Amino acid sequence: MDEFSFINKYLKPLAVNFQGSLNLSDDAAVFSPPPGCELVITKDAITEGVHFLGSESPSLIAAKALRVNLSDLASMGATPLCYFMALVLPRTTSEQWLKKFAAGLGATQAEFSIALAGGDTTANDGKLSISITAIGTVPQGTALKRSGARTGDDIYVSGTLGDSAIGLELLTSSPSPFQGEGRGDGSNFINRYLTPQPRIELGIKLRTVANACMDISDGLAQDLSHICTASNVGATIYTDKLPTTNIQKALTGGDDYELLFTASPEKKSQIEELSKSLQLPLTRIGEITAGNNIKILDSSGTEIKLSKKGFKHF
Amino acid sequence: MDEFSFINKYLKPLAVNFQGSLNLSDDAAVFSPPPGCELVITKDAITEGVHFLGSESPSLIAAKALRVNLSDLASMGATPLCYFMALVLPRTTSEQWLKKFAAGLGATQAEFSIALAGGDTTANDGKLSISITAIGTVPQGTALKRSGARTGDDIYVSGTLGDSAIGLELLTSSPSPFQGEGRGDGSNFINRYLTPQPRIELGIKLRTVANACMDISDGLAQDLSHICTASNVGATIYTDKLPTTNIQKALTGGDDYELLFTASPEKKSQIEELSKSLQLPLTRIGEITAGNNIKILDSSGTEIKLSKKGFKHF
Repeated sequence: MDEFSFINKYLKPLAVNFQGSLNLSDDAAVFSPPPGCELVITKDAITEGVHFLGSESPSLIAAKALRVNLSDLASMGATPLCYFMALVLPRTTSEQWLKKFAAGLGATQAEFSIALAGGDTTANDGKLSISITAIGTVPQGTALKRSGARTGDDIYVSGTLGDSAIGLELLTSSPSPFQGEGRGDGSNFINRYLTPQPRIELGIKLRTVANACMDISDGLAQDLSHICTASNVGATIYTDKLPTTNIQKALTGGDDYELLFTASPEKKSQIEELSKSLQLPLTRIGEITAGNNIKILDSSGTEIKLSKKGFKHF
Repeated sequence: MDEFSFINKYLKPLAVNFQGSLNLSDDAAVFSPPPGCELVITKDAITEGVHFLGSESPSLIAAKALRVNLSDLASMGATPLCYFMALVLPRTTSEQWLKKFAAGLGATQAEFSIALAGGDTTANDGKLSISITAIGTVPQGTALKRSGARTGDDIYVSGTLGDSAIGLELLTSSPSPFQGEGRGDGSNFINRYLTPQPRIELGIKLRTVANACMDISDGLAQDLSHICTASNVGATIYTDKLPTTNIQKALTGGDDYELLFTASPEKKSQIEELSKSLQLPLTRIGEITAGNNIKILDSSGTEIKLSKKGFKHF
């Protein structure tokens, strides 16, 4: 199947609901943000052997590529608008594979009300990589940033941490060959790795609640340090408060795609209500401190040191 | 060198001039188009073994990645604003390579007044690929499209065609190993392959002159068919009018990155003046016809048939 057939047969149907895509028939997309809104733009690539194994079903790979980018939009409080995709395919890619891949994009698009706006497809002798540029909007001036944390803020995380890292371990250590879908014992953990859940709704609600926000993709310890650096503050984290079954993986595992945010203590009841209405745990795990140190305290109050802060890509 | 050191040392300096980049310190960039303007967004990936050889100097590879995307902006008549980049690096990439790569981006940014706004860097066991999303702006409603060609329009191309395909042939057929820069005989052709010239200024001027426009990246014959399909028209091309030293390569070679545009015959003198003021040949090579056929006529008026329409990526 050549590039143009792939675009016509499988990609154009993904673009019909977004007028700015010009039906994928031009060199570029053309559009404006809605009045009073700014654009939020993120670009994450996922590549075989790093962010996915390559043996997953193509629809799961497509979904993950889109979901990790949507998670970046969620972390800024943005409402998803559209996305661009550049595919670098192994030359051996079959039409069957492409069809399933496009189906995975379609299902994820529908879930998050987003459409394809443009992109590029090419093939080489290397491994599969998928680069997505996701575009969202926020009312002018309301984007959540890493730099807004203030001394005395409570630190929260959504959902649970470390599950995805456990899932990856299950997938790669299993004696039986990986079958493409999580089944049997550990399937919850495996699904967390395969299909991250971008916290779009939470991000939108946090625009008026959080002082700083980001998504956790490289492990809590690593990502919290980004907020502290950007905000010029420190932090204290209590391991016995972490919503996890594995403290080490919560601190240093990757691929959680939960939101990490800080908020003034007076927002506590608002955050509790938000947690109820979204049916999503929002757990207070520590507080922002003066200075630049991040302290991680165990249940006895003893500071623990990490040998490995988080996942670094190269 | 790890991802964060690379970002801090080499990428952040490329982002300082674009406020919306948030200094590459957040999950996404945040910005709005200037008042009265729309955004033009394109995404092209270039990958080792397809769009470049891999043996070029890293700064040339960086420049080409940015230039092919700027060419897409040119084809829509857009003024460049910023870009996002996802790099998938071989694990063996050295800091020296990264430094030169960043230098190539920096030089190209300066030439086209564009800045880095965000992106992602990862590494795997495969080949180098670079995905760029370039963003430009046009005054509302003025973007040039493929779909505007009308029966009776003249068809023009900028510059010369086929040079890049000759350059690639010289680079890959030479008995001596490729040295990274075009030198000696054929260096003009080789430079056309290595360093395409996005026709930004021309694109901006064509907003009020051309009816349809695109850039030629897959060969004239292939790309003209896109304009004809989008505009529901046919075309006649005269090979003896093509600005080229090699008709076959002009018709089916790749990587020209010249602009192909159509304009009403009454714009002829305006286009001649534009050619003079930009010191860039703008050559009338044929005309748009009713129907859907593309006829390519040789100097005797005989129709020629192409065995291979252009470059298809997979």
